[in-house]
Amino acid sequence: MGAERITSLQNPRLKQLVKLRDRGARDAAGQFLIEGYREVKRALAAGVKPGELYCGPDWFLGENEAALIAEAQEAGAVVFELSKDAFAKVSYRDRPDGLLAVAPQWRRTLEDLPRGNPPLLLVVEAIEKPGNLGTLLRSADAAGVDAVIVCDPVTDIFNPNVVRSSTGVLFSMPVVVAAGAEVQAWLRARGVRTVATTPAATTLYTETDLRGPLALVMGSEQYGLSESWLKGCDQLVRIPMAGQADSLNVAMAAIITLFEAVRQRSRRC
Amino acid sequence: MGAERITSLQNPRLKQLVKLRDRGARDAAGQFLIEGYREVKRALAAGVKPGELYCGPDWFLGENEAALIAEAQEAGAVVFELSKDAFAKVSYRDRPDGLLAVAPQWRRTLEDLPRGNPPLLLVVEAIEKPGNLGTLLRSADAAGVDAVIVCDPVTDIFNPNVVRSSTGVLFSMPVVVAAGAEVQAWLRARGVRTVATTPAATTLYTETDLRGPLALVMGSEQYGLSESWLKGCDQLVRIPMAGQADSLNVAMAAIITLFEAVRQRSRRC
Repeated sequence: MGAERITSLQNPRLKQLVKLRDRGARDAAGQFLIEGYREVKRALAAGVKPGELYCGPDWFLGENEAALIAEAQEAGAVVFELSKDAFAKVSYRDRPDGLLAVAPQWRRTLEDLPRGNPPLLLVVEAIEKPGNLGTLLRSADAAGVDAVIVCDPVTDIFNPNVVRSSTGVLFSMPVVVAAGAEVQAWLRARGVRTVATTPAATTLYTETDLRGPLALVMGSEQYGLSESWLKGCDQLVRIPMAGQADSLNVAMAAIITLFEAVRQRSRRC
Repeated sequence: MGAERITSLQNPRLKQLVKLRDRGARDAAGQFLIEGYREVKRALAAGVKPGELYCGPDWFLGENEAALIAEAQEAGAVVFELSKDAFAKVSYRDRPDGLLAVAPQWRRTLEDLPRGNPPLLLVVEAIEKPGNLGTLLRSADAAGVDAVIVCDPVTDIFNPNVVRSSTGVLFSMPVVVAAGAEVQAWLRARGVRTVATTPAATTLYTETDLRGPLALVMGSEQYGLSESWLKGCDQLVRIPMAGQADSLNVAMAAIITLFEAVRQRSRRC
């Protein structure tokens, strides 16, 4: 593959890769990490153009790595070959598979969103755990959501654990990061009905109309939705809970509500 | 609390606590680990009687530990006080909170199951990841499932990560471990309808009747359901998928199907 070889653990490129695990370094560089064969493959398929691809052939698990490396090179990536130890240093996975890409971050605004007809949007507020944000993206993808709007984020969408837990959906799903007030005004101006899930609501999520232009709104793990969303939403709904108060986390509540929307929207009425 | 104090990292009790992370040692001892304030509290509330409670006061996060320790002592636990280092050695959490109990395992059989009227059961086959098994238990709890039947388990239900990810539901939910063939015969004899989720089905999960005595059957992460369940189930259903083929994992598929059952069963028809 004609790649530059890196064996020194002191190589500044390796140090930068480790730094990119932290948000500050990611934002400063405008870049983020994509680790793993599946993730890199999906990034390329979605049109992401990694600037660099770091390979640790000692860690390769399959036989298709060469083809993927060629694909990344065609997309413009500079390829580096790392010794076993060097790759171990830069990998943040339990089980590395020898592939780690660095790609430029992107920013989408509300105006970039596709206009589904009628659109189904997922709005999440101040999600704290990267794993939850990634799972929310997966759920949105499975439910055919047109876009995910991340309000007032606590974890940034380019966190390595968001990349991983979204199983690549981050690359294909339109994701917008914006302030809550701006999002509320935008949804209102476009006539998108907002339905939020909160334990305090009296209406069941199955008892409200989830067809038409719709934004499902989910709050943070610890604090739920902010007052501004609770007051501003067109409808508050709850999911009936049979067990412990905290059996449903935000990702579970989202997928239940999203698939009720799918059910209602697919009915011929 | 009048507890024996342990400071030596060579103490055989500490070594045994570390060993109990492995299934072989757990099965040999007939015991398992419960780490964390919330988990120990829920275990006690559910009637679990830990034989031992290990405390690392340097790690305590709140002010209610003394009450919990007293409660455990009343339930028969012998209390040990560990130095900071000693507790760090036995904790398997990222953020220890200074509490780790050891409790006897239990075994429930199919005959021990409560007879709900009509029962809603969750059957899971050969689940591999402890985190998924724990999440399945949480989902079952939230949906008011009467019992979870774990067939041909790959991960054992007393794995520390099942305990943690179930957020204590393991203690309160009736969970039976049994062979698949035995479970199939038992369900048939009791007139419980079996509905399994599989991508190959033609019927949507929303198009089948999920009321009455019902067992929802979910397969393993990697292989799905075995032939025996695929052939033996009364109905195969699929969840409509808009996105990537693997956007839904087994825990997500289960919660979608469980809450559709809740929806159907709560309707006044």
